[in-house]
Amino acid sequence: MTQYKVPVIPGDGIGPEIVAEGMKVIDAAGEKFGFDVDWIDYPHGADHYLETGELISEDTLKELSDYSAIYLGSIGDPRVAPGVLEKGILLAARFYFDQYINLRPIKLLEGVWTPVKDKTPTDIDFTVVRENTEDFYIGIGGRSKKGTSKEMLEVSRSLYSAKFDLDIETDSEEIAYQIGMISKEGTKRVIEYAFDLAEKRDRHVASVDKANVLSEIYGFWREEFEEVAATHPDVDTDFNYVDAITMWFVKNPDWFDVVVTPNMFGDIITDLGAMIQGGLGLAPGGNINPEGTSMFEPIHGSAPKYKGQNKVNPIATIWAGSMLIDQLGETEAGASIVSAIEQNIMENNVKTYDMGGNSKTSDVGDDIARIILEE
Amino acid sequence: MTQYKVPVIPGDGIGPEIVAEGMKVIDAAGEKFGFDVDWIDYPHGADHYLETGELISEDTLKELSDYSAIYLGSIGDPRVAPGVLEKGILLAARFYFDQYINLRPIKLLEGVWTPVKDKTPTDIDFTVVRENTEDFYIGIGGRSKKGTSKEMLEVSRSLYSAKFDLDIETDSEEIAYQIGMISKEGTKRVIEYAFDLAEKRDRHVASVDKANVLSEIYGFWREEFEEVAATHPDVDTDFNYVDAITMWFVKNPDWFDVVVTPNMFGDIITDLGAMIQGGLGLAPGGNINPEGTSMFEPIHGSAPKYKGQNKVNPIATIWAGSMLIDQLGETEAGASIVSAIEQNIMENNVKTYDMGGNSKTSDVGDDIARIILEE
Ligand SMILES: CC(C)[C@H](C(=O)O)[C@@H](O)C(=O)O
Ligand SMILES: CC(C)[C@H](C(=O)O)[C@@H](O)C(=O)O
Repeated sequence: MTQYKVPVIPGDGIGPEIVAEGMKVIDAAGEKFGFDVDWIDYPHGADHYLETGELISEDTLKELSDYSAIYLGSIGDPRVAPGVLEKGILLAARFYFDQYINLRPIKLLEGVWTPVKDKTPTDIDFTVVRENTEDFYIGIGGRSKKGTSKEMLEVSRSLYSAKFDLDIETDSEEIAYQIGMISKEGTKRVIEYAFDLAEKRDRHVASVDKANVLSEIYGFWREEFEEVAATHPDVDTDFNYVDAITMWFVKNPDWFDVVVTPNMFGDIITDLGAMIQGGLGLAPGGNINPEGTSMFEPIHGSAPKYKGQNKVNPIATIWAGSMLIDQLGETEAGASIVSAIEQNIMENNVKTYDMGGNSKTSDVGDDIARIILEE
Repeated sequence: MTQYKVPVIPGDGIGPEIVAEGMKVIDAAGEKFGFDVDWIDYPHGADHYLETGELISEDTLKELSDYSAIYLGSIGDPRVAPGVLEKGILLAARFYFDQYINLRPIKLLEGVWTPVKDKTPTDIDFTVVRENTEDFYIGIGGRSKKGTSKEMLEVSRSLYSAKFDLDIETDSEEIAYQIGMISKEGTKRVIEYAFDLAEKRDRHVASVDKANVLSEIYGFWREEFEEVAATHPDVDTDFNYVDAITMWFVKNPDWFDVVVTPNMFGDIITDLGAMIQGGLGLAPGGNINPEGTSMFEPIHGSAPKYKGQNKVNPIATIWAGSMLIDQLGETEAGASIVSAIEQNIMENNVKTYDMGGNSKTSDVGDDIARIILEE
């Protein structure tokens, strides 16, 4: 029997509850398809941080890099300032393991209610390939003190008004700034991944940017996109401004097959994507380094107010688990988990409150595990 | 009779067609409410640029600054590279006139079809106050040549992985970067505006940011927000991450009253807002400098493929016209235009293709003008 070792970081809030269901379902798939997973528990998250001061240490990350897939619940806690845990654990892992693909299927499963009108599972079935280690996520920024920002403000305003003699009072201003950066290699590899994926799907790649305004960074993105596109003449392409794509996700989701996007825009549009596929309770994601250590998680947060209530929907996490074992090579078992989720939804009698039911988190995990074993 | 002079920039694509309807309707409102508008035509846009090389000159901008409101059609043309006209004309004006408020009502009018389920005009009725002269719109960015970016990449990656001994190969990389900047004054004044507006509405201001990741720039935004909020104890507030707010716009638009947002996120979420209020054909915007020259426009683009067909919906532009005359002080006339739009929609027999009809652009303008004169 094939034996896998998979590190698990249940994390904060509802993380432990939902990850428990994911492990239960993967164990059932293992029983059925002949593999066994040895789950290795890691305590990282708010409690661990508040007790020890450790977010996630280099030693831990080094240790984790021995594995090809990590299972993550969710990170974030109201006792800790916004960003500390997210950056210190979640983003630290994405960057440390160079998980340059954030893969987010946007798929309306049969039987799921979507808040957008007149859309069926045929209309909503695409995948967002989000760049995951660059862009405005690199964490470079700062502030200038009173009086020192005059020059920067003037440079900036004068870019639009070249040589205009503006009379702007800036002496007393303080400013804050943030820098985004993308590299040629970092851009190319994620776009390549998107094209490879499109070749296994419907041969269409939509690129997202805001090259009409953030022209330096996204002009570069477009050039790299065009270079890669030229080597895949069998794939159709188009460019979309990020503002416009939010409209098309709602009105014409059927236009999309593979969507490739810089990191920050990817963050925004995949939450919208989650909504059209029925809500955050149903949206999984994979942070992927095809040659290294990947990490699978629901795209939702830690929902602190539901913690410990055995109430939230574990499907996003279970679906992320199917992506995880798929990544390990257990393709058939991975597919069986998605089918079992679909069947659970179609049977329509074991479901959590967000889907209009009143089953518990663990009931849904039990039901999906049962379906896998019975089929 | 009160006499106004209003510069008009019809612009590109469908711009001239829709602005003509807006002027027609404002003229009708003038007839009814006793004012007269002298429209002063400006040729700026793609044709003018291609013929003369001028985007918009300092002389022109200086001249325009004598007026308190400009009426703009739309800017953008496929013959010109993305961003050239948008930055050279539209953003140039926003920056030159320091139009620091971009006011975008998101209101589902009675009788309009929205693509989101179970929402009525009572649910979708809020206003986005978008900062309009800072953030990632300042136009600072650049590229580094092969080999020079190693250091920047290392600094950035090490911010997440402080002191980790990463082994990233960066020698051969080229990069592009973009800088966003917000100032204390620039942030304060737009947030103040939002609170003042909320005091005339339902006393709720939602702030949008991504302070958990772009912590420098949006941490600063949050601090300014809290400072302003403290001086308006009668107004309720909350913070929203930009990714999450795209979900709530679709699922719970009734949560919002006034939404205040940095420039780039405002660009993104107002297109989504336009969609939930029935589409771009119905979404107006005002670029406002309360003490200077403001500029009113539909939030949609120039839709080149519809140019000259007398086919597109002029309502966004007509509605923007109502905001324009409201700004001039003709409050009652402004309100009468919005009522006439609502009545045109309710009567449901003169409407363009996007609303399921087959009337022409000019028919809709005629109908709305007629309603104003007859009421
Ligand atoms: C929690 C946060 C740092 C994260 C992100 O911004 O990437 C989340 O929103 C996501 O999409 O995975
Ligand atoms: C055309 C473009 C520069 C503009 C913007 O990004 O602000 C537009 O999308 C808008 O929202 O008015």
